[in-house]
Amino acid sequence: MTFRQKHLLGIENLGPDEIIALLDLAEQYVDLNRRELKHSDALTGLTQVNMFFENSTRTQASFELAGKRLGADVMNMAMQASSIKKGETLIDTAMTLNAMHPDLLVVRHPHSGAVDLLSQKVNCAVLNAGDGRHEHPTQALLDALTIRRSKGRLHRLNIAICGDVAHSRVARSNLILLGKMENRVRLVGPPTLVPANFAEFGAEIYEDMHEGLRDVDVVMMLRLQKERMDGGFIPSEREYYHRYGLDRDKLSVAKPDAIVMHPGPMNRGVEIDGEIADDINRSAIQEQVEMGVAVRMAAMDLLARNLRATRAAEPIEA
Amino acid sequence: MTFRQKHLLGIENLGPDEIIALLDLAEQYVDLNRRELKHSDALTGLTQVNMFFENSTRTQASFELAGKRLGADVMNMAMQASSIKKGETLIDTAMTLNAMHPDLLVVRHPHSGAVDLLSQKVNCAVLNAGDGRHEHPTQALLDALTIRRSKGRLHRLNIAICGDVAHSRVARSNLILLGKMENRVRLVGPPTLVPANFAEFGAEIYEDMHEGLRDVDVVMMLRLQKERMDGGFIPSEREYYHRYGLDRDKLSVAKPDAIVMHPGPMNRGVEIDGEIADDINRSAIQEQVEMGVAVRMAAMDLLARNLRATRAAEPIEA
Amino acid sequence: MTFRQKHLLGIENLGPDEIIALLDLAEQYVDLNRRELKHSDALTGLTQVNMFFENSTRTQASFELAGKRLGADVMNMAMQASSIKKGETLIDTAMTLNAMHPDLLVVRHPHSGAVDLLSQKVNCAVLNAGDGRHEHPTQALLDALTIRRSKGRLHRLNIAICGDVAHSRVARSNLILLGKMENRVRLVGPPTLVPANFAEFGAEIYEDMHEGLRDVDVVMMLRLQKERMDGGFIPSEREYYHRYGLDRDKLSVAKPDAIVMHPGPMNRGVEIDGEIADDINRSAIQEQVEMGVAVRMAAMDLLARNLRATRAAEPIEA
Repeated sequence: MTFRQKHLLGIENLGPDEIIALLDLAEQYVDLNRRELKHSDALTGLTQVNMFFENSTRTQASFELAGKRLGADVMNMAMQASSIKKGETLIDTAMTLNAMHPDLLVVRHPHSGAVDLLSQKVNCAVLNAGDGRHEHPTQALLDALTIRRSKGRLHRLNIAICGDVAHSRVARSNLILLGKMENRVRLVGPPTLVPANFAEFGAEIYEDMHEGLRDVDVVMMLRLQKERMDGGFIPSEREYYHRYGLDRDKLSVAKPDAIVMHPGPMNRGVEIDGEIADDINRSAIQEQVEMGVAVRMAAMDLLARNLRATRAAEPIEA
Repeated sequence: MTFRQKHLLGIENLGPDEIIALLDLAEQYVDLNRRELKHSDALTGLTQVNMFFENSTRTQASFELAGKRLGADVMNMAMQASSIKKGETLIDTAMTLNAMHPDLLVVRHPHSGAVDLLSQKVNCAVLNAGDGRHEHPTQALLDALTIRRSKGRLHRLNIAICGDVAHSRVARSNLILLGKMENRVRLVGPPTLVPANFAEFGAEIYEDMHEGLRDVDVVMMLRLQKERMDGGFIPSEREYYHRYGLDRDKLSVAKPDAIVMHPGPMNRGVEIDGEIADDINRSAIQEQVEMGVAVRMAAMDLLARNLRATRAAEPIEA
Repeated sequence: MTFRQKHLLGIENLGPDEIIALLDLAEQYVDLNRRELKHSDALTGLTQVNMFFENSTRTQASFELAGKRLGADVMNMAMQASSIKKGETLIDTAMTLNAMHPDLLVVRHPHSGAVDLLSQKVNCAVLNAGDGRHEHPTQALLDALTIRRSKGRLHRLNIAICGDVAHSRVARSNLILLGKMENRVRLVGPPTLVPANFAEFGAEIYEDMHEGLRDVDVVMMLRLQKERMDGGFIPSEREYYHRYGLDRDKLSVAKPDAIVMHPGPMNRGVEIDGEIADDINRSAIQEQVEMGVAVRMAAMDLLARNLRATRAAEPIEA
C-alpha cells in the first residue's frame, strides 16, 4: 500500500507517491459527490470526532460532510464551550476523548504543534485541520488536486503564492507540497508579510506583483489574516489592494490560461477583485471547495484502512 | 406529478393542487412519526444542509428531525459563527456551500428576499425556513394541515389571524395560503400592528377582538415580535393582553368548536391565556408542532423527487 | 425483565437487581466499543434528543456517541439559544419537543427536580444527565461499573468520597448507589463542604484525609464546583490542595491496591496531584470515561425495550 501514514499531521511527512495515491483516490470521491446518491460505506461502524478549538464553519462542514457521506458516526465537539472554560488541559481533553474510542479525530487548534502533541496521546488516526501557523495539509492537498485537474499535471509548473505568507499555514503546507512535486514556487508580497527566511523552502521571493506573476501557471491568493497579526505593521486595506490585490491588470502578466485560487473566505476588494473571483474562465475557487470534500474523504478512507491493518496485526487492549 | 416546484420559497408560488398534494403526503408522514420505527429511506444518499442565519431552536429541530427520519445526511451550519464574522458575503457563502453538492438546503435569514436570491445561485433544492417579514411557507402548510385535520376541510372556513400581523411572515404566508384555498380571513389587531394595506390580500380588518372573532372556526394567534419592532409603537404587555390577548371571554364569541392556534414560542399572559393554550379541547398548538415535522418531511421528499427527475432529464456537469 | 423503569431519573428509584442488570448489559457494550466496527442497530428507527440547559461537552458527547453507535437518529438541541431567550417556559419547551415524537430524551438542567417535572409531561423515556445538586445517575452507574471491573465486586468495599460533597450531584448519586449495594462509604472534607446531614445516607464523615482514606479500596475525588458555590466560604486553591488534594502522601494510607477516581474535568493541583491522575496503576479516570459511553448505551437500550413493551401493550393515540 502506498499511503503509509498513521496520522495526517502535515505535508512534511508525506512522500510524493503518497500524495499521488491520495489524489487518485480523491478523484473517485469527486465522482461520487457528483452522483445522485452520494453515500458510501467506507467508514461505516467507525466514529469520527471533529474537535475545532478555533472556529471554522467551512472546514468543519467539509470534514463533517466527508465523514457522513462515508457512513461514519460523526460528532462535532464544541471546544470553545465548557471543558476548556473549566480549565481542563489539552492533554486531559485528548485523553478523555480517546477513552470514548474514536477512530478518526479531526483537530483544529490555534497553537502550532498542538495537533502533533495530541496525536501522541491517542490510539486513533488524527487529521490536522490547521494548527497555528504550522500546517493545514488537507488545504494543500485540495489545492494540488485542483491544479492537477486544471493543468493536467502537478509538476514543473510556475506557481505564485501571494499576500500574507507570514501568518499562513495554507502557504506553508502548499510550499512544502509544491516543492516535493518539483514545481517552481514564488512568494509575492511586502517584506513584512513575506519574511526572507521563507527562501529556505526553495521559493523565490518577489515584492512586486507584476514581476512575481510574470508567466505563472497558477496564482494562489491568500487571505489577509488580520486576526493573527499581533503587533506588526497592518497595511490599510485600500493601500494593500492597490499594491497586492489581484486585479485584471496584475493578472495580465501571468500566462493566458493561468488559474486563480483562494482558500476562502475571501475579502473581496482587499486581496482580490470580485470580478476575477467570479470569472469562471480564470477562477478555480469554487472547484477548490468541491475538491476539499473529496480530498478529506480520501484522507479519512486511507487512514481508516491503515488503522484497520494495524489493529488486525497487533490488537490493542484498551 | 402534481408538485411542480424546484424550490419551496413561498406559498405565493404554489397552486391549490400542489398544496393539497403536499398535505396528502404529509398525512403519511404523520402516521410514520407515530410508529415505533419512525425512519424511512426516502432521502438516503442525499445531503441536507440547514443554514440558519437567525436562531430558531424549534424550526431547525423540526427540519433536522424530518431529514434524519428520511435517512438524509443532515448537517447544521452555525451561520452566526466565523464565516460571517470574517466578512464573507451571502452569495460567497452560498456558492461555497453549493460546491459541496448539497441536495436540500434549508435557509432562514433575517432579510426578506435573501432566500430567493440564494436559490438562484445554487444547483440544489432550497427551502425557505423564514426570510425577514416575507414568507415562512412550511409554517403556513403545517397550519393548513392542522386545520384540515380538525375541521375536515380547508376551504370556506372563517379564520381570524390576530395580533402582530405587520411583523409576521407567518401571517403573510397563512393569508396567502388560506386565500388560495377560498377561506374568509380576518385580521384582528391595533392599526399599528395590522396596516390597512393588508386588505389587498382579500382580508377583512378588525380592531376589536370581540367583533373579529365572532363565529370564526379558527383563531390563529401570533407572537408579539418585539425583536422585529424597530421604532414604532410598542404596547405595554399588560395593556396588550387586556385588549388583544386571547382569553375565555374573547374566545366565547367564536364558534363553540373553534380551535386555537399559535406558531410558538408563546408569551403566556401576553398574546394568550395559559389556560386556553393548555385546553386540549380548544388548543391545537401541540398538534401544530407535530404537523410541522410531517409537513417538512413531505416538502423535502417532493422536492427531492423533482430534483431527481430534473437530473435524470438533463445531467448537470458541475 | 429485571429493569422496570420508564425513565432513568435517579439512582433512588433503582433496585439492586436493576443496577446489576444494567451493568451486565453495559459490559457487552464495553466490548462493542473496543471492536473495529462499533455500531449496532439496537435503537435504529428511534429518535434521541439531547437537551442540555447547562453546558457539558463531555457528558453530551458521551450520550451522543452512545446513541449514534446504537443507530438512533440523534439530535442535539442548543437550549441556551433562542427559545429560552424568547421566554418560553420549561414545560412549553418539553411539550413542544414531545409533539415531535422523540423516543429518548436526555436532559441536563441547572435546577434540582427539573428533569423529573419534565418527565411527567412527555410520552418518551427521559434520562437525567444531571439536575442541579440532585442526581446524576449515569455517572454513579459508570463509577459502579469501573469499581466492579477493578475490584471484582460491587459490595462490601470501603469507599471514600472526598471534597466538595455539598454541591455535588455526583456524590449524591454515588452515595445512594453504593449504599444500596452494601458498601461502607465515607465522606471526607471540610465541614463547609461536607454538611453533617449527609450522615443520613449512612455514611461516616471525616474531616481529615489521613483518617478518611485509611484502608479504603476506592478513593473518589470530586471536582471543586466553584461555579455552584453561592455565598459560602471558598477556600484558596493552595490551602485546599494542602489539606484535601489527593497526593502520594495522603494516598499512602489507603489499601495498596486502592484505585483513584475523578468524574472530570479535573483541576490538577487543586483536588488531585497530576502525577497520581496519570498513574496507570492507580488511576481509573480514563476507564471511567470509557465506561460512561457503555453505561449510557445500556441505559438507553433498556429504556427503549421498556418503551416498546409499553407501546405494544397499550398503543397511545397522540
